[in-house]
Amino acid sequence: MQLARVIGDVIATRKDENLHGMKLLVLQPITADGSPAGRTLVAVDSAGAGIGETVFFVRGKEASFPFYPTEVPTDAGIVGIVDRWDLG
Amino acid sequence: MQLARVIGDVIATRKDENLHGMKLLVLQPITADGSPAGRTLVAVDSAGAGIGETVFFVRGKEASFPFYPTEVPTDAGIVGIVDRWDLG
Amino acid sequence: MQLARVIGDVIATRKDENLHGMKLLVLQPITADGSPAGRTLVAVDSAGAGIGETVFFVRGKEASFPFYPTEVPTDAGIVGIVDRWDLG
Amino acid sequence: MQLARVIGDVIATRKDENLHGMKLLVLQPITADGSPAGRTLVAVDSAGAGIGETVFFVRGKEASFPFYPTEVPTDAGIVGIVDRWDLG
Amino acid sequence: MQLARVIGDVIATRKDENLHGMKLLVLQPITADGSPAGRTLVAVDSAGAGIGETVFFVRGKEASFPFYPTEVPTDAGIVGIVDRWDLG
Repeated sequence: MQLARVIGDVIATRKDENLHGMKLLVLQPITADGSPAGRTLVAVDSAGAGIGETVFFVRGKEASFPFYPTEVPTDAGIVGIVDRWDLG
Repeated sequence: MQLARVIGDVIATRKDENLHGMKLLVLQPITADGSPAGRTLVAVDSAGAGIGETVFFVRGKEASFPFYPTEVPTDAGIVGIVDRWDLG
Repeated sequence: MQLARVIGDVIATRKDENLHGMKLLVLQPITADGSPAGRTLVAVDSAGAGIGETVFFVRGKEASFPFYPTEVPTDAGIVGIVDRWDLG
Repeated sequence: MQLARVIGDVIATRKDENLHGMKLLVLQPITADGSPAGRTLVAVDSAGAGIGETVFFVRGKEASFPFYPTEVPTDAGIVGIVDRWDLG
Repeated sequence: MQLARVIGDVIATRKDENLHGMKLLVLQPITADGSPAGRTLVAVDSAGAGIGETVFFVRGKEASFPFYPTEVPTDAGIVGIVDRWDLG
């Protein structure tokens, strides 16, 4: 999983039926020191995240696990909202 | 998922039988600021996209979900056409 | 999926039993403008491709779909031979 | 799999229910010569790892195997703690 | 799949139970011209490879196929030992 900031959202009326009703958020991945790292991406959300929050997300088929038995065609999903992280 | 522009299509008469009848589109991924990011790729389409449109696509096995129970051997699929995106 | 040129083959007598009898081809991925992009890789072939041809291939578990129910341990497979591609 | 150092942990009270009770650790991947390589990431742990230890972790759906039948939505999991490695 | 040289091994007494008894080898991926390409990684082996040999390996869930029905939590596995490869 990676840390990310939620920086926007996507409006798409024509999309796969299993994506209907899903919030599509734009994420900027960040590293453990808080700096941007890598390309922005679009993720579904099962954690109730909003723009401006720091989250962690999962890539791959695992991103669809929270929506079973619906087979959501996504490869990125927010699975938690970060309170804080500590470097030891 | 990633944002992309549809920039072309691929003609292939000899291909896996589960790809027959599928539209094969060439995508240029873009970032949230609209600039190209990363290599072009070939994707199947379940959203009715055409050349010149902005879409979002999924990578991995999830790209074949919209075609179940047919096991389409693809690792990239357009799952929505973007009306717009907003950066908050 | 990505476009690629078939540039060679691999000879391996000791390999996983589910790879026996499979053609193992060396691919050079290319972008939509025909230039090499990224590292060479080894792929199985279900499309009848040969050295010198332009193909498109799939990465990940999907590469084993054409061989079901045999569980071929591969993460890259040629699934089509390209006649041409057009940029719109 | 990749070698990594455990460099921190993440606190997240709002997260997918299948992540509840899971330790979320921040990893810095390293190469075989011990130098950092690639971005930090967040992983679950099934090996009992702690901050400061050298581990190896798995990416992808495989990261959820140790928690079956619970479908943990993770794409990275520590699966072993390294005693040492030898370059031949 | 990618070509690689086996350059070392990893000793780990505390690891996921489905990794017990598995040889954990350190690989350096190489390209078709034999030069190193990309980061070292740790792979399981179902082909009987040893240090110094040239192999090809698979990434992802497919790396666990040779060990079915055991669900080995690995994302990289050696599936063949290379006799030679030819560039056409």
